[in-house]
Amino acid sequence: MADEIDVSLASYEELMDLEKDFESAELEILRQQIPLLKPLYEKRTSAIAKIPNFWALVFEQAPPDLDQFIQPSDSAVLLSSLTSISVSHFDVENGGKGDPRNVAVTMEFAENEWFEDKVLVKKFWHRQSKGNDAGLVSEPVAIKWKAADKDLTQGMLDLAIKVWENDKKQGPSDSTKVKKEKDYNADEKALKAKIEATGRGGVSFFAWFGFRGLNVSEEESRLAIEKDKKDRAEREAGNAPDLLEAQEEEEDDDEDDDEDPFGLEIFPEGDEVAIEITEDLWPNAIKYFTQAQEVDVSDMDFEEEDEDEEMDDDEEKPKTNGS
Amino acid sequence: MADEIDVSLASYEELMDLEKDFESAELEILRQQIPLLKPLYEKRTSAIAKIPNFWALVFEQAPPDLDQFIQPSDSAVLLSSLTSISVSHFDVENGGKGDPRNVAVTMEFAENEWFEDKVLVKKFWHRQSKGNDAGLVSEPVAIKWKAADKDLTQGMLDLAIKVWENDKKQGPSDSTKVKKEKDYNADEKALKAKIEATGRGGVSFFAWFGFRGLNVSEEESRLAIEKDKKDRAEREAGNAPDLLEAQEEEEDDDEDDDEDPFGLEIFPEGDEVAIEITEDLWPNAIKYFTQAQEVDVSDMDFEEEDEDEEMDDDEEKPKTNGS
Repeated sequence: MADEIDVSLASYEELMDLEKDFESAELEILRQQIPLLKPLYEKRTSAIAKIPNFWALVFEQAPPDLDQFIQPSDSAVLLSSLTSISVSHFDVENGGKGDPRNVAVTMEFAENEWFEDKVLVKKFWHRQSKGNDAGLVSEPVAIKWKAADKDLTQGMLDLAIKVWENDKKQGPSDSTKVKKEKDYNADEKALKAKIEATGRGGVSFFAWFGFRGLNVSEEESRLAIEKDKKDRAEREAGNAPDLLEAQEEEEDDDEDDDEDPFGLEIFPEGDEVAIEITEDLWPNAIKYFTQAQEVDVSDMDFEEEDEDEEMDDDEEKPKTNGS
Repeated sequence: MADEIDVSLASYEELMDLEKDFESAELEILRQQIPLLKPLYEKRTSAIAKIPNFWALVFEQAPPDLDQFIQPSDSAVLLSSLTSISVSHFDVENGGKGDPRNVAVTMEFAENEWFEDKVLVKKFWHRQSKGNDAGLVSEPVAIKWKAADKDLTQGMLDLAIKVWENDKKQGPSDSTKVKKEKDYNADEKALKAKIEATGRGGVSFFAWFGFRGLNVSEEESRLAIEKDKKDRAEREAGNAPDLLEAQEEEEDDDEDDDEDPFGLEIFPEGDEVAIEITEDLWPNAIKYFTQAQEVDVSDMDFEEEDEDEEMDDDEEKPKTNGS
């Protein structure tokens, strides 16, 4: 039995190292593929510019994983005012060697009754913590609401910005330093109360601009990735603590913080939304637009048909795979 | 109003052409990426070989889109006998210039009470029909059941093979030739009855080996893709029927067949299963295995903890994004 566990741990370590190799290979592939696709996305941007409401319609047809975060009041804003979305993998677009998972989502808006901003840019960076957590981090982006009763987040975004501005004054981010709830200042207490009062389901999509994610600085991430590589090289050379011991060590480091590091996050699924937009809405926008239009040119011919017949027609259509 | 429709049709055409450009670019990227990842998959295969039941556990942890097709009786077979899965993009793996969506799924089995086969290989080809439908097609693969009451498909797969063998004698596939139900021969009638008696929910996963898909020959697909390219070039040169007229023409071609081309398909979602295996189960196998094992090395240290504490631990774990 002891033997079995040994084998399985060694194999497990090998598998985890392989997962890292796959991740590196896939990042390198992404790094090459983004500049290749860029001219096509630019062509698409020109084609889309001729179509009024393109992005509003795409957002309306958003996949369920994204749509769940759009409240009816958000829909009204997006449908009437969203004029453009663009996604930029800013670190690799021009052949750069950075992380292709770093993205900026730019949303443009027409004059509207809710806020002054014509452009909102939300940037995300992929970072790794000392404790080996990895994910997208971001900085809150302020929205200039035209009046308090036009604020779709009901003050939550403004408070999140205030808390963040104050955090910045305390020094750089550190994933191991999580403030205990009993040490919250007045703004933090107010924010916590607002988050609890709003409840998970009722948060506006626009609170997404307040997402922060893991509290990891660029420096912490760089060191964590370096340590990872060093540990692995030593492990492969046979003279280093194995993965289990390394992780135990990290566990010990972490033992102090029994606080929820996301206690003051106003949009906890902000990273998921970024990934949904980047990996689904953006690349598949034409597909969602076509769905929204329900334009099927082959049907235009048959407009006189009654509804029953059209339904039969649909049922008989051979499936196609999403290639 | 008429003007508006014209603009929108021209834009629609432009968008559809762009979608084709994206598709070509993505195929080219896939074509380059598959040989790059091949050595890593080979390394993974060696690592996995040391772990008993790896694939059986992965299959048990299959994502819902795949799991829905696995009956309890299938699970028993897979868990006790599945020893290996592999996915091969056979047309591009060694730098070939074919379609990277063409795949072969190879499943290997230990000696078992249900069938004689040690290896089952299911191949798929991506094809396009004259009528502009596209998707994966395949050929039925026979399974040598050890006895009639061991046949998980209850005779359905054997009948599908018989029907297919007979179809082959009638000449090459042609997507526009769909046999009317009134012209079915005895085997086809028997198969149709069996499909209807089984009902959608109750079909064994092993019926997947009988999937055929669109009735499109390699030649029909080649010609359809060529015609597509020619039409587009002429359209861009400004002297060709536009997309709408072209599609109307194709509609006319199709008008004869008001029969369901998938009336004798024993596993209509066979293409989806192929895609689930190829694009999710196969690349994410280590992730699913880890889930199945619920191996979290960082928890091994805390086995003495009571369950409540462990749950607290989980809740506090920061989210990571699936990069």
